[in-house]
This record gives sequence, C-alpha cells and structure tokens, in this order.
Amino acid sequence: MDRLIDAISAADNPSVVGLDPKPALLPKQLIDNAREATISESEMGNPMGAEAAWSINFAAMYLKFNTAIIDAVKDIVPAVKPQIAMYEALGEAGLWMYARTCKYAQDNGLYVLGDIKRGDIGSTAEAYAHHLSGFPLKFSDVADPDEVENVERNAEANAAGIDDAEENGDEFQFGSEWYEDAVTVNPYLGTDGITPFVDAAATHDKDIFILVRTSNPSSSEIQELELANGGRVYEHVADLVEGWGANTIGSHGYSRTGAVVGATHPEEGARLRERMPHTFFLVPGYGAQGGTAADVARMFDANGSGAIVNSSRGIIGAWKKNPDYNEDLNIDDALAIVAQSARTAALAMREDLNSALKEARR
Amino acid sequence: MDRLIDAISAADNPSVVGLDPKPALLPKQLIDNAREATISESEMGNPMGAEAAWSINFAAMYLKFNTAIIDAVKDIVPAVKPQIAMYEALGEAGLWMYARTCKYAQDNGLYVLGDIKRGDIGSTAEAYAHHLSGFPLKFSDVADPDEVENVERNAEANAAGIDDAEENGDEFQFGSEWYEDAVTVNPYLGTDGITPFVDAAATHDKDIFILVRTSNPSSSEIQELELANGGRVYEHVADLVEGWGANTIGSHGYSRTGAVVGATHPEEGARLRERMPHTFFLVPGYGAQGGTAADVARMFDANGSGAIVNSSRGIIGAWKKNPDYNEDLNIDDALAIVAQSARTAALAMREDLNSALKEARR
Repeated sequence: MDRLIDAISAADNPSVVGLDPKPALLPKQLIDNAREATISESEMGNPMGAEAAWSINFAAMYLKFNTAIIDAVKDIVPAVKPQIAMYEALGEAGLWMYARTCKYAQDNGLYVLGDIKRGDIGSTAEAYAHHLSGFPLKFSDVADPDEVENVERNAEANAAGIDDAEENGDEFQFGSEWYEDAVTVNPYLGTDGITPFVDAAATHDKDIFILVRTSNPSSSEIQELELANGGRVYEHVADLVEGWGANTIGSHGYSRTGAVVGATHPEEGARLRERMPHTFFLVPGYGAQGGTAADVARMFDANGSGAIVNSSRGIIGAWKKNPDYNEDLNIDDALAIVAQSARTAALAMREDLNSALKEARR
Repeated sequence: MDRLIDAISAADNPSVVGLDPKPALLPKQLIDNAREATISESEMGNPMGAEAAWSINFAAMYLKFNTAIIDAVKDIVPAVKPQIAMYEALGEAGLWMYARTCKYAQDNGLYVLGDIKRGDIGSTAEAYAHHLSGFPLKFSDVADPDEVENVERNAEANAAGIDDAEENGDEFQFGSEWYEDAVTVNPYLGTDGITPFVDAAATHDKDIFILVRTSNPSSSEIQELELANGGRVYEHVADLVEGWGANTIGSHGYSRTGAVVGATHPEEGARLRERMPHTFFLVPGYGAQGGTAADVARMFDANGSGAIVNSSRGIIGAWKKNPDYNEDLNIDDALAIVAQSARTAALAMREDLNSALKEARR
C-alpha cells in the first residue's frame, strides 16, 4: 500500500475519483459525436452493422470523457477508481475503453484502483488475479528470443509505414493488460479465493481491497448478521482481511490487503479502524450516497492516514450543475466544462476532507 | 428457468459443460498455431507489437478450442458454462473470445450460463445486469429511423465489397452483447445488488444463479458461520434467494433465481433442496473437485429435476488422457481428439448422473 500512501501524501489529498461513466452522465455533445461518427463511417466504407459500429463509437466516448477528467484532476488527486461494471455494460468495446482509461491514468502518474469486485474459487481466482499479474502466457514464453526480436522489428517497420492516427487520439490502441495498481475483491468464497490475489499483489507491487462493509442500504442483510460466537459477519470478515494482509505490511504500517468500508456506516467504520490496525480503507459512499466528511474522518488513523475516500458522481457529474453548460456548445467547449467542473468539485472535496481530518485531530 | 429445464429434458442430460480454457488445457498445436500466426502476420505488415499481436492470436485459440468442443457435444448436452475469469485473464482480446464463444454456443442451440459471479451495489449492479439486458443505449435510441436504415444499407453494401474472411473463421466478428442466457451472481451486497439482475432476467427471459454454498475448501469460513438466531450464513442466504425468486416461478415450478450449491457438500445440498423448493440448483464440484454422482443426486427433486451439474476439466481436459493424442499430430487431428474425448466424457457423465438419479428414486 506504500505507493498509494505516498501518492496521497504528495497530493495532500486522501480522495480518489470514481470514473463511472454511464449514458446519463455524458454530455449530449459526446452522444451526438458517436452518432455522427457511426453514420459517416458507414458512408466511408465501414462494413459493420449499425449497432456494432455504434457500440465502439459510443464506448470511445467514455474514454474521451475520462481523458478530459483525468487531465483536469491529475495534479490534485492521487488516484482514480474506474468501476468496471460501467464499461462491461458496453460489452467488449467497453472493456477495451476500461483498459485504455486505466492506461491513460497510469501514464499520467495516477494510481489506478480497478473496482472489479471479483471473487471465485481458488483456480478461478488465479485467473482473475491476472488483473494484477498480467497475461498468463506471453509470446516470449513460447517463442525464441530471435523470433520475438524479429516480430518487434517488423512491427516497428510496419507501424512507421502507416499514418499514425493514434497521435490524434482517434484510433484504438490494443493492449492485453488491464493497467490496474489495485483491484477490489469479494470475500464470500473465503481464503482460497483470496490467496491468488494476495500473492499476485505481493509479487507485482500491487494491492487489493476486500469488501467488508459496503455502503449500500441492503448491505446489512448478510454483512450485519449476528454470529453465535459474538460479533457480526462483517467483523468476522474484517478479522480475516487483517490476517490475509499480515505478511505484506509496508513501510507505512499498512498491508497490501485493504478493506472496503462504506462512508454510510460511520460508527462501524470507526470500530473497524481500531479492529484492523494494518488495513488501509477504501471508503465509498461519500457525497451522493450520503456520507459526510465528518463521517469518513472516523475511518482515518491518528495521523490522518489509513483511508482513501471515493467520489464518483459528485465529481464526474459536477458539470450537470454548472450553469455555463448548455447543449448548444461544441464538443470541445462541453468537455472543457466537464473538466473544469470536475476539478472544482475535486478541490472542494479535498478541502472538505482535510478540514474534517484537522477537526478530528484537535 | 423453463428454457433450461426444457433443454435438459430434451437432451435427457442434467449436465453442463464448463468452458474454462487455460494455457495448460490447450494442446501444444494450438499454441504453436498462435505463435506462427504472430510471426507471419508481422512479416505481412502487422504494426502491433509482439505481445499485443500474440494476445489476440492466443485468445483466438480459446475460441477455436471451444468451437471444437461445442460441435462435439451440442447434441448431447443442454448447456455450456463459460467461466469468464479464464477469458478476462487474457484482457480485452480474451473477453472478445468469451462473447464469441457464448454466441457460437447460442447459435448452436445451447443454453449459455455465463459464470461471471458479479455483485455490486444497486446502481453498479444495474450496469452488470446489462449482461442480460444488452447494450444500455442503442443506436436506434439516438438516431432517426432513416439514419439507422442508411447505416445498415451502407454496411451491407460495404461488407459485400470486401472478402468475407469471416466464413473461413479466421477473422474476428465484433459484437456489443454478451450472448448469455443466465449469469451467476454474488449475494454479499444484499437485495439492492440482486434486484437489477432479477428484473433484467424477468424482462429478457433469462435466469440468474446466486452463490449460496460454493464447492471450494475455504467456503466454510464465511458461508458456514453459525448465526445467533440459529442456522448458518449460507442458510440465511438460501432463504433470501428463495425469496428473490418468488415472483418468477415458471411452469416447471422453479423461479428465475437459481442457486449455486457445490457437489462437495452433499449433506447441506440435500437439506437446501428441501429448504428451497422453487430454486433450481447449479452444482459445480462434480468430478475433478471430488463430488460424485451419488452426492449430486441428493440435490435433485423427487422428479429427477431441480439441478444441473457442471463439469469443466473432466470434459474439456479429457483429451489429455487420450492415448491417441501426441504432440506431432497436425492441428486438425489434435482438435478432433479434443472433440472426441470431450464427447466420450460428456456421454459418460450423462450415464453416471442418470444412473445415480435412477438409483436415488428407487
């Protein structure tokens, strides 16, 4: 967790921007752009059917939207948290844009927390852990070194011979990795579903965050069940999480195995903070879901560390409350308002959190 | 769940083939094929770097492998269950092949159970539920009917003008849907994380299967915890699942909300069968994980219905025990042995299950 904690210190900001686009959060200009691209490409020779062509163009708007936001906040936040569900809703094209969003954020110096909430039995969890460890069988594993060298040399020559549309940002670059620094994981399957992630994180200098107490209203149905031996299900999970991290405690005192603890449960959060002294918290539920800065301040340690707070809609949807926005703007001006609104909201959140943390330490 | 139950009856086979490829389950011939394609494409002008080009060629081998198996078993099994983690390990290219595997199986008349084990809070669960409901914003939602018609007409004309490599199976078809008939879901987030899936299933004639008692050794750590009010966590989840399905009970008496109950827990499975009279079971853990036909027979109802049993490695890895296979075979002959071995194993499993079910009803 050291890399994340250092990034938080450098930005003086324990918050993470949730990159959770959805159709209702995109300015009309982006949707129009995708529609027009679909039409003009079909006129220029695209053989794809309308919905398939549209799906790629629409997904590309998620990347365009995210890129504007990342550019606007990269100097004031340490991390972003793309929610993979939003991209997965768009099928393969969406996941392509998820990976490209992660890569763009990493390339801009941000820590990327992939909110994937995966969880499965041992052998399958190993497959999911490739989110952290990369492609399971590389070309260099199956080809001779001179074959690899030849392909790389050919590729370079071939790339030089074609127009580099990539520079204009209007072509897709294909990658086989996910470009995440951490992922979220579901604990319902127990230790053998977690170990592959713990191991991959340790080997590849990455982190995981395990669901302990989620921010949603129904989270109580299972997580708050009282146990015969005392305590609640989420407290038992908390103890498991603290144990799963025991071998990866970094220089700041926190392990590579973090916990997801919703801002909407400040009392439980404060108790979990004491119960899990080596577990860093990812705190969703601030803002739109109802958690306040005073609520989340209780999930930090005595040094004002130990947690990072997420806001998604409050930042990426801030443009919707900006009176300068209107549907007649051109796409660049609309994106500038998206960007500026996100930056203003991110700065306000930093101020809000830091004030509450200062207050809490008085 | 009616469609699945009817398919099981038609095939006289309550089993599902797990399509869970991984590098170690692919014959060497397929890996060689991907390596050679990567080299020859670079010689023919591919500008992609070695690992990116390889990742697509390697992922394409998963589809080739699956296609051989689907062709071999489609007349004797009702369903396949691709495990998305295996494809996700290969990044975007892998998920592309996941979707194409699902589509190929559906096109061949099979019920496709996407083993995705997703689970998140309400608004995010809504996004995941697009696995069942399709693309969240279609071209036809944003374009005029004549624009849609024009794009379709252009696409058709454009497609006619190019070589149709698709027919040879060596080009990728792009789609924006997942082509699943059911998905698996994780219950840890509670009702608001489940409702979007329940709703999407009802609207789109699909089903879901919720994790209740998984087959892995550590599943006891959380699922078996004893509750203060009596019973265990998984029993409480079982009651929630039975409730979530209450409004979608079909003509065979089972709801659209099924449960995952591992074959490795025959006692609990038998009790759950009584506890959840309207809940169809997906039973993993038969074969390689240790569950026997007699174990799983206890999870069926008095009519020999109520469950479908999965086998993955036992079927798709059966070629490894076939003495006719050797590494010097050509790729087509190797795939023929994969196919024939899978068919033999699937037939043996059907016989094994049906005998045990007959025995259990004596």
